[in-house]
Amino acid sequence: MADNVVYVGNKPPMSYVLAVITLFNEGNKTVILKARGKAISTAVDVCELTRNRFLSELEVNEIRTGTEELPRREGGTINTSTIEITLSK
Amino acid sequence: MADNVVYVGNKPPMSYVLAVITLFNEGNKTVILKARGKAISTAVDVCELTRNRFLSELEVNEIRTGTEELPRREGGTINTSTIEITLSK
Repeated sequence: MADNVVYVGNKPPMSYVLAVITLFNEGNKTVILKARGKAISTAVDVCELTRNRFLSELEVNEIRTGTEELPRREGGTINTSTIEITLSK
Repeated sequence: MADNVVYVGNKPPMSYVLAVITLFNEGNKTVILKARGKAISTAVDVCELTRNRFLSELEVNEIRTGTEELPRREGGTINTSTIEITLSK
């Protein structure tokens, strides 16, 4: 697990914003937001909140989407969309 | 309103996938998916479903995020995140 990655889940966006700010303050030049399924919207919120309210010099380098197969409890797999947003100073 | 834009809302993803396929079949070279708020995750689903199941030659040209101010019923405004995904043949 790379240490400049923030996995966005179903907590309020601000907790992930704080994680992003902390990683930049620790000296990272890039921070990657990763999310899947419904948390994708939250990842975009985190990106926008961080840039509009806290680190206005941040740039969105790249946004990539993908598909992941997740195992289902009942057996078989289900496809979920993913997003990776690369932010840099 | 440009005619190669699909506004993704809270219908099931497949209805938007169908809209995208129709626009490409009508001769458009690019189709733009636009969504805001929770529908952002659905827009990514639409992008992934279209590429993985129907039009594998499609490329994601650009993904842009943004923030929009929406008026609230109670007065004032609320900020919402937006996404624009540009697909091309």
